[in-house]
Amino acid sequence: MAHQNLAQQRLLIKGGKVVNDDRSVVADVYVEDGVVRQVGPNLNPEPPTGLVVLDATNKLVIPGGIDTHTHMQFPFMGSRSKDDFYTGTKAAIAGGTTMIIDFAIPQKGCSLTEAFDTWKSWADPKVCCDYALHVAVTWWSNKVKEEMKSLVQNKGVNSFKMFMAYKDVYMVNDEELYAAFSCCKELGAVAQVHAENGELIAQGAKKMLAMGITGPEGHELCRPEEVEAEATQRAITIANAVNCPLFVVHVMSKSAARVISNARREGKVVYGEPIAASLGTDGTNYWNKDWAHAAAYVMGPPLRPDPSTPGFLMNLLANDDLSVTGTDNCTFDICQKALGKDDFTKIPNGVNGVEDRMSVIWEKGVYSGKMDENRFVAVTSTNAAKIFNLYPKKGRIAVGSDADIVIWDPKATRTISAKTHHQANNFNIFEGMVCHGVPVATISRGKVVYEGGAFNVTAGEGKYVSRPPFPPYVYKRVRQREQVCQPVPVKRAPYTGLVSATSITPK
Amino acid sequence: MAHQNLAQQRLLIKGGKVVNDDRSVVADVYVEDGVVRQVGPNLNPEPPTGLVVLDATNKLVIPGGIDTHTHMQFPFMGSRSKDDFYTGTKAAIAGGTTMIIDFAIPQKGCSLTEAFDTWKSWADPKVCCDYALHVAVTWWSNKVKEEMKSLVQNKGVNSFKMFMAYKDVYMVNDEELYAAFSCCKELGAVAQVHAENGELIAQGAKKMLAMGITGPEGHELCRPEEVEAEATQRAITIANAVNCPLFVVHVMSKSAARVISNARREGKVVYGEPIAASLGTDGTNYWNKDWAHAAAYVMGPPLRPDPSTPGFLMNLLANDDLSVTGTDNCTFDICQKALGKDDFTKIPNGVNGVEDRMSVIWEKGVYSGKMDENRFVAVTSTNAAKIFNLYPKKGRIAVGSDADIVIWDPKATRTISAKTHHQANNFNIFEGMVCHGVPVATISRGKVVYEGGAFNVTAGEGKYVSRPPFPPYVYKRVRQREQVCQPVPVKRAPYTGLVSATSITPK
Amino acid sequence: MAHQNLAQQRLLIKGGKVVNDDRSVVADVYVEDGVVRQVGPNLNPEPPTGLVVLDATNKLVIPGGIDTHTHMQFPFMGSRSKDDFYTGTKAAIAGGTTMIIDFAIPQKGCSLTEAFDTWKSWADPKVCCDYALHVAVTWWSNKVKEEMKSLVQNKGVNSFKMFMAYKDVYMVNDEELYAAFSCCKELGAVAQVHAENGELIAQGAKKMLAMGITGPEGHELCRPEEVEAEATQRAITIANAVNCPLFVVHVMSKSAARVISNARREGKVVYGEPIAASLGTDGTNYWNKDWAHAAAYVMGPPLRPDPSTPGFLMNLLANDDLSVTGTDNCTFDICQKALGKDDFTKIPNGVNGVEDRMSVIWEKGVYSGKMDENRFVAVTSTNAAKIFNLYPKKGRIAVGSDADIVIWDPKATRTISAKTHHQANNFNIFEGMVCHGVPVATISRGKVVYEGGAFNVTAGEGKYVSRPPFPPYVYKRVRQREQVCQPVPVKRAPYTGLVSATSITPK
Amino acid sequence: MAHQNLAQQRLLIKGGKVVNDDRSVVADVYVEDGVVRQVGPNLNPEPPTGLVVLDATNKLVIPGGIDTHTHMQFPFMGSRSKDDFYTGTKAAIAGGTTMIIDFAIPQKGCSLTEAFDTWKSWADPKVCCDYALHVAVTWWSNKVKEEMKSLVQNKGVNSFKMFMAYKDVYMVNDEELYAAFSCCKELGAVAQVHAENGELIAQGAKKMLAMGITGPEGHELCRPEEVEAEATQRAITIANAVNCPLFVVHVMSKSAARVISNARREGKVVYGEPIAASLGTDGTNYWNKDWAHAAAYVMGPPLRPDPSTPGFLMNLLANDDLSVTGTDNCTFDICQKALGKDDFTKIPNGVNGVEDRMSVIWEKGVYSGKMDENRFVAVTSTNAAKIFNLYPKKGRIAVGSDADIVIWDPKATRTISAKTHHQANNFNIFEGMVCHGVPVATISRGKVVYEGGAFNVTAGEGKYVSRPPFPPYVYKRVRQREQVCQPVPVKRAPYTGLVSATSITPK
Repeated sequence: MAHQNLAQQRLLIKGGKVVNDDRSVVADVYVEDGVVRQVGPNLNPEPPTGLVVLDATNKLVIPGGIDTHTHMQFPFMGSRSKDDFYTGTKAAIAGGTTMIIDFAIPQKGCSLTEAFDTWKSWADPKVCCDYALHVAVTWWSNKVKEEMKSLVQNKGVNSFKMFMAYKDVYMVNDEELYAAFSCCKELGAVAQVHAENGELIAQGAKKMLAMGITGPEGHELCRPEEVEAEATQRAITIANAVNCPLFVVHVMSKSAARVISNARREGKVVYGEPIAASLGTDGTNYWNKDWAHAAAYVMGPPLRPDPSTPGFLMNLLANDDLSVTGTDNCTFDICQKALGKDDFTKIPNGVNGVEDRMSVIWEKGVYSGKMDENRFVAVTSTNAAKIFNLYPKKGRIAVGSDADIVIWDPKATRTISAKTHHQANNFNIFEGMVCHGVPVATISRGKVVYEGGAFNVTAGEGKYVSRPPFPPYVYKRVRQREQVCQPVPVKRAPYTGLVSATSITPK
Repeated sequence: MAHQNLAQQRLLIKGGKVVNDDRSVVADVYVEDGVVRQVGPNLNPEPPTGLVVLDATNKLVIPGGIDTHTHMQFPFMGSRSKDDFYTGTKAAIAGGTTMIIDFAIPQKGCSLTEAFDTWKSWADPKVCCDYALHVAVTWWSNKVKEEMKSLVQNKGVNSFKMFMAYKDVYMVNDEELYAAFSCCKELGAVAQVHAENGELIAQGAKKMLAMGITGPEGHELCRPEEVEAEATQRAITIANAVNCPLFVVHVMSKSAARVISNARREGKVVYGEPIAASLGTDGTNYWNKDWAHAAAYVMGPPLRPDPSTPGFLMNLLANDDLSVTGTDNCTFDICQKALGKDDFTKIPNGVNGVEDRMSVIWEKGVYSGKMDENRFVAVTSTNAAKIFNLYPKKGRIAVGSDADIVIWDPKATRTISAKTHHQANNFNIFEGMVCHGVPVATISRGKVVYEGGAFNVTAGEGKYVSRPPFPPYVYKRVRQREQVCQPVPVKRAPYTGLVSATSITPK
Repeated sequence: MAHQNLAQQRLLIKGGKVVNDDRSVVADVYVEDGVVRQVGPNLNPEPPTGLVVLDATNKLVIPGGIDTHTHMQFPFMGSRSKDDFYTGTKAAIAGGTTMIIDFAIPQKGCSLTEAFDTWKSWADPKVCCDYALHVAVTWWSNKVKEEMKSLVQNKGVNSFKMFMAYKDVYMVNDEELYAAFSCCKELGAVAQVHAENGELIAQGAKKMLAMGITGPEGHELCRPEEVEAEATQRAITIANAVNCPLFVVHVMSKSAARVISNARREGKVVYGEPIAASLGTDGTNYWNKDWAHAAAYVMGPPLRPDPSTPGFLMNLLANDDLSVTGTDNCTFDICQKALGKDDFTKIPNGVNGVEDRMSVIWEKGVYSGKMDENRFVAVTSTNAAKIFNLYPKKGRIAVGSDADIVIWDPKATRTISAKTHHQANNFNIFEGMVCHGVPVATISRGKVVYEGGAFNVTAGEGKYVSRPPFPPYVYKRVRQREQVCQPVPVKRAPYTGLVSATSITPK
Repeated sequence: MAHQNLAQQRLLIKGGKVVNDDRSVVADVYVEDGVVRQVGPNLNPEPPTGLVVLDATNKLVIPGGIDTHTHMQFPFMGSRSKDDFYTGTKAAIAGGTTMIIDFAIPQKGCSLTEAFDTWKSWADPKVCCDYALHVAVTWWSNKVKEEMKSLVQNKGVNSFKMFMAYKDVYMVNDEELYAAFSCCKELGAVAQVHAENGELIAQGAKKMLAMGITGPEGHELCRPEEVEAEATQRAITIANAVNCPLFVVHVMSKSAARVISNARREGKVVYGEPIAASLGTDGTNYWNKDWAHAAAYVMGPPLRPDPSTPGFLMNLLANDDLSVTGTDNCTFDICQKALGKDDFTKIPNGVNGVEDRMSVIWEKGVYSGKMDENRFVAVTSTNAAKIFNLYPKKGRIAVGSDADIVIWDPKATRTISAKTHHQANNFNIFEGMVCHGVPVATISRGKVVYEGGAFNVTAGEGKYVSRPPFPPYVYKRVRQREQVCQPVPVKRAPYTGLVSATSITPK
């Protein structure tokens, strides 16, 4: 029923400034059947009856946010993340995000397809906005390769994540990375990596515990930012060796971001995803005297103690050295975090973000003057749509696009707090941050699902969005290079001299 | 008459792939009165009579190129550049460029407005495509300031160029730069710089001549790339001190490009313009044994002898570290160049490019796999339109945009040669370069002005295009910073202690 | 009398670890007539009578520090720096420094030789340890050039400092820099620069005052670190154009230090001198709520608010990206500073450092593990001796070297305080810093001038030290490049074609 | 007998300029019993009888070279390197090198001690100059750890090399690297790495062969420089995690050298060793049309096709970004190379260098003006002695040092050629290079072993040189950091709230 209603809904957003990634223009937006039908001045869709009209005067009308990185109801580290696909997507909507991409993560040795199906079965009945699923490759075999192919061809998956950390759990080695990247390239998928050197983390954690450092600060100390930078460099090198586009998830440190930026300057096809947490707060929190506070920030890779990190990452994001933003939203409440109260390695990793991402980026990026509203749209929505081949269905307000739209008040402010947020956990890592830029209304596929603080959502109303392989934004260069940039053998006369007769067996 | 014809012309471009900077889509384009009216599949504009139809099947349909940097019929160094506004714009059209931005350059002490009027009087009767004029600020006074204001407010000028080279001729010092940048910021104009340390050039030239180096290689030796990098760094520093957006014209070296890229990473509002010459050839030519060949490449700043320069610049252009492309088209034939046959400082500076820019960038950028067709459109047209506030009238194929369009055959090749080019001079710095990517037809404001090698141009048919101040693409961040990022005094109790009574006169 | 006593003094330092820049070894040091005569195990100089013996067991025996940058009793900004050559050198001795190099600074238009003579006349009767004088070039003329030559040939000067800041007072422009650098290269002198863009400072100061920022924070705000980095880059570029070695005094910022480090990697002969202040404290002090505190840190270039600056500079110093350390010791007491109580531009610029330099560098450099004791000797003494051509007379403990020696207790600690320091002013910018590494005894030319907190100095006992031109450490490469790396003209047939007959007069 | 003669020999080197790394001075050098006894002007050792006198007027007297990286008679890739310890050290002597450090390399699973003993048994009867042995760690177990300890404590080994390449042969993974580095740190040894990503090489080789690229160019194409840079970054990161000093052998590329330089700037204790080959020639040779020529340059990591590589590396070597120089001398003649005539992966890896290293570095480094004679001594001898704890016994001409001395004529030239060299193989990668700087005489432990082109060597006369652990030059900082830079736990009240009761089993 919900669906039918949705299809029939007619909506007119009047008088706002429509902001796409290339420019802003004052225009009305008319929506029918969940799709944008007209964009222009003074629209008067007929008949007037049954037409929902939203006044956006003095407001911005922006493409709904796409959060490229969430983990709803994720079974992880002996617990399960608190936000499920219902509360998680509801919180997303409240913050101006209308699509999430979550991760289906099989255990080593287990089926990727089954993982995909499991996650989809969790999401479908609950999601309040559209979603898609990246799939993790946590081991390697011919079966994995075949499943990747099938997921791409039959399930609308065009991205696979490999972990370079979580030794013995999810981590794959260089040989496996090479194989996975090769397979992605062949299939037209985007390879993603969690870039940290898992070996160093394992060793570092042992060392810290042995030194008596059991608190959350140990989490950062055992995996300082060079551990992230090293893996980032390695992943880029391997991906480049097979001419596979690479997407580095959760860029947390200045050094890792620099590695990505430098690779891009050299022409490598690589994208970096900072997250709300790394753009909005920092790792000094791990040294907080209150264990519960400190533990709440534990995530992997960790936030960095260098307080200039968020500003640095925002500068790179503004400059397209970094491309898109996610959240790694994976919330655990304090009782769950307490699993690691005596040993930081047992604190479930994860923080909030899906609700606050848009506001945090507006405040730290746009209000601060680092980027303009158009770049804001690019990094919160458009670029994600381009990279994951959803553009211009998603990520743009244009005739024919999905009506995933947010009315954004750039003058209003709100204060982030766990007391008022819509996420399931009882802590907010951005607590107290005053943000300019407030979502006044959120429209998902043409339906006003959030307005003035009130929800109008139905669990399961969101849709799984298939993503075709070979996103042109990513793969045009890749394919051209395949054709043009291949080495050729030197033409030579064969060597006809003597060949050393006696081979020596080394001792 | 021409104009009326133009206005009435109805044109349908069928079956091509329409390439904008954000994506490509197979669609028809319908044009009326010089403006794009429809973009979509299977258009059938009525009535069919009088409709010009161009078949673009298997071709790309791209926004006409904008050359941000030309010097047509420029009186310079005791001569006048060979291409005037007629041959220059005709050559542009043949190459797929439908708009140029030239420079009005007053002598020191002379009126900017008069220079503007002079250049406009040269251009108006001759141009075959649209054009605009940057204006140079070669000295400083209150009158200059007032003229800048008047040019912005009354003449549609939104960019001013300052020379840091050409000592005693055009060069301004740091104090003047500061004043000019401040004025630009206030007026909403884009400050441009020719970034070379003029003092070092003057000294270096003397030194080379004293060493007996009188040939074209002396031109590069007296102004190596660090002379360019230094001035670039200085200009960025000064512009940033006044929060003025900066556009560095003709980026010729790796080190200068690196300076710009690094500044952008730090959030500075700066744009770099490599040119066809720096992207397509290099400074080893100055060491050519044939004087005429070597002299033909003399321009300022010079091409660089490091042969990896063009590829490096193209990588940065592909990655948006550099933003747009011009040509510095300023052609002198060999007899003009010969003014400096015994002294390289007297060789008129300038090279061709306005015709070949699009092909050179396609070949070295797109065919090579460094950028895709969308980025090609961005760097040859869209970004220029955004920076100089012409977007989306120029730089995009969309409903309402000017019908400056090129049909581009990405599979065809042509060989660049002075024998076949349409420029006025008798030498081509890209001689012999085989380029994939050929303009099949060029449309200026809806009129097919070039097709299959044949012109249909009329001198004076192009229009001067006014550019409003405060381009949003450039100035949104600038203005926000003005409002938000200002320092505030520390609140302190006043110092109430003794003040040293005896001031000492230094010897 | 003093002198004769000195000459006769015989001294044995027993059992210490002798630390030179290349290694440390336990050995005795025997001194006669102010010169080291023997270094080795178990020395027993005869006769034992009249032999002063110092026990250095478990202590380090290091070359006395050389402070490359002081301004004693400097008439500046309407005042005169508080430490004169007596208190200044006494304080130096207490801290383990046995030689200072001060600056003779003529006003624009005034004689360099006279300035030199003036400063020498101030110093000679007062100095308690050896000293030398750099001379500033604050304007340019043939007379200046001749005076430079004379100072080099007759007065033992081998270094000249040029100011790129202090507009209208000391500042020289690029043309003058070029001339001065050329002259230095010819004479075999080391060119020094105060690297800040004086034009930007002048403008910035006006701007800050106009914004109502009159306190010490305005001092930093009007000359942020990019103002320093820009000038550093420019000076290096100009110096390199004439193949002149360059010494950048008081490196205060990360960005300027990076410029120097990068230039060195490219083979440029450039040296950077961080100072005690930039290595030991930072510019957050300018925001101190107490005006007197904030003003006490005012110096040019300013300390930087980025708190990671000192550690960054120390890393580069440890790694030989930066070479030597000075202090820019130029003390003004609070009543003098108060000249600028209503206008930061009138606060006399200068801080202390001559006494505490060695301890600050030991604490932040050696104790922290960033450098070892040998590198400590290099950066506090040896490298200065090499660059200014005093090596191995100064900067090394070896047979034949001057007996400028410090017995250093690496285990002891002291707390820096204005209450206990020996400088003339009433504030210490390192107040409260606990330093490992304490000078137990200081020996100047073989005389124990400080021991266990007690002085044994006589005003005027120090000597002016002549420095010959062409320091081999600096100039060997420079001279080789002169001979080998010169460009040669391309051999070509002359151009014999037409030359454009009509030269056009540009409008 | 030889030994006795050596001990008795008395030698006077007259009138030369003695060049150490800190300065040059004209002085005589007197040698007795293989040790320097006096350095000074006008020495007249008594009695004159039996005194060998060498006239070094107008010549340089320099410490004999130390080649930190050779593989004499190395059983490798189905062959054995042609130069054995006799011809290899004889060639060394002819070139001015008086000590080599070779590598004992056990097969995986084999004893390190046995390998050490084997190599020593090969060397002892043959060496004509002093030598030492690094030992490779090619696998990991407790036994390996114990053997490392024993080698350090009983055999005078203070350096161990780990391979990150040669998959399945010598390669160790990150976990093994971590263990080996930890062990080195504990023992006071220097960890060395062959830094290339072995996994990428293995894959790349397969790919090249599959593409039909079987010639020597495939050797470089399958392991481009980013493969080297990646491993270098990884090794530095891992070593830093355990605070272990790292020595990167054979730095071949600009990018790897940059990684090392940047790490040093950050304070990491890491040293880079470029080699004669990477400083003197380049990888364009792999594209030579003559297979035998191309194959002769095959070594791992390969030389780089970027022709600016050697100059870049030399700049960094001059600036102490890189520290010492070796050769990786591992010669195979053309018949041996021909084992890989149909498959580049079977070409024995190795080039010459032990004879020509000094001349190549003089020519490209000193003659070119990039470094002076003192830095030349540092990078060819002194720094190696310091890092491997042989200083000042080796690496310096001073009283008490071993009389390993070379009389060097900086004005003379020679042309390198396989026709005249003293190495065992029939190809020289520097063929035709004209070098300024010629060794006139070589003295090993006080004996003139080479003079005017004639040898006076005896196999076995060289000695194995023990190297004590914890070289102070390397380890002072490391130890201080151990003591001072350890993290401490945050003091907190324990968490007393609820702990999530139900742990969820992930699906």
